[in-house]
Amino acid sequence: MNDFIYHAPTKVIFGKDKHKDVGAIIKGYGYDNIMLQYGQGSIKKSGLYDEVMASLAENDIMVVEMGGVEPNPKLSFVREAVKVAKENKVQMILAVGGGSVLDSSKYTAAGACADCDPWDFPIGKAKVENTLPIGCILTIAAAGSEMSSSAVITNMELNMKRGFNSEFNRCKFAIMNPELTYSVSAYQTACGVVDIMAHTMERYFRPCEPTDLTDRIAESVLKSTIAAGTTLMKNPQDYNARANMMWASSLSHNDLTGCGRENALSVHQLEHALSGEYDEIAHGAGLAVLFPAWAKYIYKQNIPRFAQFARRVWDCTQADDEAAALAGIEKMADYFKSIGMPTCLADFGLDASCIEKLADLCTFGKQRKIKSYIDMDFEVVKEIFKMCL
Amino acid sequence: MNDFIYHAPTKVIFGKDKHKDVGAIIKGYGYDNIMLQYGQGSIKKSGLYDEVMASLAENDIMVVEMGGVEPNPKLSFVREAVKVAKENKVQMILAVGGGSVLDSSKYTAAGACADCDPWDFPIGKAKVENTLPIGCILTIAAAGSEMSSSAVITNMELNMKRGFNSEFNRCKFAIMNPELTYSVSAYQTACGVVDIMAHTMERYFRPCEPTDLTDRIAESVLKSTIAAGTTLMKNPQDYNARANMMWASSLSHNDLTGCGRENALSVHQLEHALSGEYDEIAHGAGLAVLFPAWAKYIYKQNIPRFAQFARRVWDCTQADDEAAALAGIEKMADYFKSIGMPTCLADFGLDASCIEKLADLCTFGKQRKIKSYIDMDFEVVKEIFKMCL
Repeated sequence: MNDFIYHAPTKVIFGKDKHKDVGAIIKGYGYDNIMLQYGQGSIKKSGLYDEVMASLAENDIMVVEMGGVEPNPKLSFVREAVKVAKENKVQMILAVGGGSVLDSSKYTAAGACADCDPWDFPIGKAKVENTLPIGCILTIAAAGSEMSSSAVITNMELNMKRGFNSEFNRCKFAIMNPELTYSVSAYQTACGVVDIMAHTMERYFRPCEPTDLTDRIAESVLKSTIAAGTTLMKNPQDYNARANMMWASSLSHNDLTGCGRENALSVHQLEHALSGEYDEIAHGAGLAVLFPAWAKYIYKQNIPRFAQFARRVWDCTQADDEAAALAGIEKMADYFKSIGMPTCLADFGLDASCIEKLADLCTFGKQRKIKSYIDMDFEVVKEIFKMCL
Repeated sequence: MNDFIYHAPTKVIFGKDKHKDVGAIIKGYGYDNIMLQYGQGSIKKSGLYDEVMASLAENDIMVVEMGGVEPNPKLSFVREAVKVAKENKVQMILAVGGGSVLDSSKYTAAGACADCDPWDFPIGKAKVENTLPIGCILTIAAAGSEMSSSAVITNMELNMKRGFNSEFNRCKFAIMNPELTYSVSAYQTACGVVDIMAHTMERYFRPCEPTDLTDRIAESVLKSTIAAGTTLMKNPQDYNARANMMWASSLSHNDLTGCGRENALSVHQLEHALSGEYDEIAHGAGLAVLFPAWAKYIYKQNIPRFAQFARRVWDCTQADDEAAALAGIEKMADYFKSIGMPTCLADFGLDASCIEKLADLCTFGKQRKIKSYIDMDFEVVKEIFKMCL
């Protein structure tokens, strides 16, 4: 087991109707002038917006609104939000939405306390030294951004999607009402399932055994998420399945599933190139195509590990490790398909002609290798994308 | 799944030699005048004391020492420590030890910010409104006090052991070096294994299914702790087993294993009477005797739950739920015995003559019922103690 630091200070307020307490919660922290960020307006249609605004008004909290955060949130929006946050001297950011709204809020919160361009953070030109506090009302279980230290943004001018990690990116509080996710479409729910699983599996498949307790916790998150996904394809309003999935989204990415293990989200790097280049591709859908291909390419580097995954998570019974490992990867691919996820690049309307570009993007023009069981250079990445055809 | 709040803000700094950074860590928080609490002097023999003091001195941190915390920490010590903390205006308490030193430090930290007697907190006469920050260097994996909100103290004048929960009881940081636990005796290691398992099982056996993800995480903590215990009886210096056990001690009691479930440490209430009355009985040893007896008394209230426990944690294969449930309880009792734990009150030199008194103590003189699948009154408690003979 490697040395590690675990620090997940976000206060989780979990359960039915909890979003209606948001005003009192914020007031409890002593803030009365906040920025509200949200997405494309679904919270207005659902009535959530009205409930949130009512709770804030009841508690005499002034609100500057920044609606319109797009999926794969954009740097241009963040730049504008930073300007507004500074002008209005807001004390905190309330994100109402999913990973995109949260990540946009994280960049805004950091940018509002700095003099540099927010893009300087992910490219390493500036370091976050301070941030506005962030709270959230989660409406999609997927990204795990509500408890994570990471945030991802897309720079449309440069056609680049980049993330960075900082302890300043941790939310102060996260309000999670599983009922708010009842209206998430089957497709987006499935994307969330894949994202949660990917966050867990990325850490699981790093070269640093033995980590027995962390392994078992990761397997728990995977098994529970798989079961929730299956249930939700049949009954999107199953409270317990929504609740398990929502809690799994947080635990998969708050570092718990990686304690004592290295952390490098390898397959995420490949996917960021894909959905960075093709904005219409959902992150989870991209991962659903890439993860089985990556696993098939890489499993020989640690067959016992993939065999453990197959046996404990997918109940594979093959006595032979390699046979079990391959069966486990197959079951993962089948599962993704069973919940309506794409299985290959063709499902996105892409063919081999995109591969050179994608491999170039995610190796930063052949300048970097992506860490995994092996360092994945341009040629390796190309090979994995080819396996997605 | 019940609504819940999860807030485990303690920063965990985990790994080899991390205790040597304690001075820099404390300085990082801006403190330079602290109280150091520790136990009976084993940290002096082991050299840990010297390493801690060297790190504190290097960082110009003034230290007021309060050594001599006893197992089942005493109110009288806390009262003295509060006085010293106030006189010296210390900014924080550093606890170097296990659960006893931590709990003593928690009462001291709360008492130092209040005008009342520290005993007022557990008896509900006063509420903690503020506390000094607490940090720790953990030397025993057992109580989970390093991340928990609870603290237990013994009032020798009244012959009472009482606990209370407060968010103020959470440590700011916890330094965990598994190597520091190499010297813990086999008996105390086994007591720790039982305590960790009990913290997990207490939450597991509460009437509030379904909680799939929390169940699986609890089962992970149990399986990993069981395996670590077995390994450590053979090789007390197995780093990974010590590390898994240490991390399990934190996760078992930081609320993670109870998310969405009710929390009432029922068997702990019985045990507090036992080790409160017989100071020489180790908490874990008391739990090892009481837990199987309690389970045999109570399992009929939720046979499917005990069957799940038996199958998932103890790999029982009985098709019939009740047969599986009973086999699981038997395996738990056998396991406790296999790691050298007592199996009955006679192993403590006690006979039936103690039972009336014990039942009276833990029902506060027949005044309270202890929550479990059923409310356990004086007669039920007596019955369970009888099953321990």
